[in-house]
Amino acid sequence: MYELHEREVLEKLRELDTKRVLIQTPEGLKREAQFLAEFLEENGIESLISGDINYGACDPADREAKMLGCDALIHLGHSYMVLNLEVPTIFIPAFAKVDVIKALSKNMSEIRKLGKRIALVTTVQHIKDLNKAKEFLENEGFEVRIGRGDGRVSFPGQVLGCNFSAAKVEADGILFIGAGYFHPIGVALATKKPTLAINPYSGDAIWMDKEAERWIRKRWAQIAKAYDAEKFGVITSTKKGQLRLGEARRVVKLLKEHGKKAQLIVMNHINYQALEGFDFDAYVVVACPRVPIDDVENWRKPVLTPRELEILLGLREDYEFDEIIGGKRERDEPMGVNLKLPKSL
Amino acid sequence: MYELHEREVLEKLRELDTKRVLIQTPEGLKREAQFLAEFLEENGIESLISGDINYGACDPADREAKMLGCDALIHLGHSYMVLNLEVPTIFIPAFAKVDVIKALSKNMSEIRKLGKRIALVTTVQHIKDLNKAKEFLENEGFEVRIGRGDGRVSFPGQVLGCNFSAAKVEADGILFIGAGYFHPIGVALATKKPTLAINPYSGDAIWMDKEAERWIRKRWAQIAKAYDAEKFGVITSTKKGQLRLGEARRVVKLLKEHGKKAQLIVMNHINYQALEGFDFDAYVVVACPRVPIDDVENWRKPVLTPRELEILLGLREDYEFDEIIGGKRERDEPMGVNLKLPKSL
Repeated sequence: MYELHEREVLEKLRELDTKRVLIQTPEGLKREAQFLAEFLEENGIESLISGDINYGACDPADREAKMLGCDALIHLGHSYMVLNLEVPTIFIPAFAKVDVIKALSKNMSEIRKLGKRIALVTTVQHIKDLNKAKEFLENEGFEVRIGRGDGRVSFPGQVLGCNFSAAKVEADGILFIGAGYFHPIGVALATKKPTLAINPYSGDAIWMDKEAERWIRKRWAQIAKAYDAEKFGVITSTKKGQLRLGEARRVVKLLKEHGKKAQLIVMNHINYQALEGFDFDAYVVVACPRVPIDDVENWRKPVLTPRELEILLGLREDYEFDEIIGGKRERDEPMGVNLKLPKSL
Repeated sequence: MYELHEREVLEKLRELDTKRVLIQTPEGLKREAQFLAEFLEENGIESLISGDINYGACDPADREAKMLGCDALIHLGHSYMVLNLEVPTIFIPAFAKVDVIKALSKNMSEIRKLGKRIALVTTVQHIKDLNKAKEFLENEGFEVRIGRGDGRVSFPGQVLGCNFSAAKVEADGILFIGAGYFHPIGVALATKKPTLAINPYSGDAIWMDKEAERWIRKRWAQIAKAYDAEKFGVITSTKKGQLRLGEARRVVKLLKEHGKKAQLIVMNHINYQALEGFDFDAYVVVACPRVPIDDVENWRKPVLTPRELEILLGLREDYEFDEIIGGKRERDEPMGVNLKLPKSL
């Protein structure tokens, strides 16, 4: 399912005169990371594997690489995110080998319910197939829009769990291609438009609108649970792409202005277990928006996003998803192995 | 149980002209950390609390403090360890308020079994009571030795889970004052002398020799389980005082010289869960020696210390504890609030 371009990686490392490299991998590519480490070692480059679980390009191990005396970092599984890196970093996104057209053909009658003008979005795994999908849909008579997205994503049409900028185009409805619930629910919430998710592995099509409604009801329940809270822990993450210190400080200030107590907590992997023992009535997570949502069952205290807190404090009426907005993207990333250098190089 | 010298801390922070500080705390002092943060904020110093679980001075959050724009770090609960810090750091050890003499008096008949010349050791919690205990025992007719220890510890007579240098003095037996099993077992293993552990909270006295034997049998079982292993993951930690990169590379080299496959893994909080999915037959943990021992039940693969690996490879016959040795200690640390500056200041 995953193509590893080990020779291309080796060449890039040799250009950089790399003696020692750190390899970072998501859960699903651990064997590939081991294979790559072995291959590079056979070719004279000392290779260390990061054992820390990695969830995204928002968490590059460039600081660790530098500390370990590595000349470079290899980040497997995700495309580049604009971050100030400390060592040259090679991003190798994982592209799925699955026929997206087959799943689209199977669900034409559902897709037609979206309207004539549809916005097409996906995750990085299927990004290479997006133009093929566009052509197929155009042949079926649709007007297909692929949003450019902002600087937090790498490619037109790409959405992240924290960024749906590419979905925000003039369209009657949104077609999401990919697996999982979190991304398409985010699309539905961020665009407030009819959203159909097509899973290219299973061939299933799911309308996200009902899911999004159910989901919002759950979030309102969290907000209600926090109504009597007096002491808030406001949490941000030391992961480079999740460190929203300015936003966290704004939230602390906001809480204090509303007569609440608030303290700023900073941690790497945000989880309730590590917070047990602190004396807070509720938490606001200002980091990855998935954390207070995906993991909510494990929290014994109410846990909100900054926008949900604004509802709690009466500063906002409508539910809004906590997106992390990027700057303007100057140009798209190359599709495959992609070397990024620190600014100083 | 814990005295917090918040005014002294405030003064030191003001001397440093601190605008923003990060506070790091072990599990048991979370409320104190919150209290301190609140006190400092009332006095005009923005205070962030680290939510990452902290186990020792080997894991200072100085890098994180720097990244967060903090002028200083407060490390609660542990005494200073010689490390190259990146921001001025205030160490505030936790001293227990418990009567150690009462527990000693109660167990005189057991203590006498140690012999006439005894070495006295403890953890930082009871270090302030060590001289009182020495005097008491001398009045009871003992010749009491308190080892100076090396540069990894801060005080004479102090032992850590990874360093028993203060126990290595001429003596018939060792008297350990403190709670828990890990430290006194380490003392027994590192000194190979009769070791009596007196818990000042419960008043219990436990001979560690049988415990140590049972413990060694368990470790031999781990070694045996790894006999057929071909592929080894050699793990070190990015925690500043646990990063034993030289030793880890030595272990990788050793394994390769013995015809095994070996790869170097680096991670922050070492735990088996994060390693699941890698294709290794066994692991060697070259970081905190407690990790492969305390947590062994959670590992589905054999996990060894570097010295246990040497036994496996036939390079060592006797069991030896994996200590982390320090350099020479120039002078003892002050007993209370203790400011350490980066070398560059």
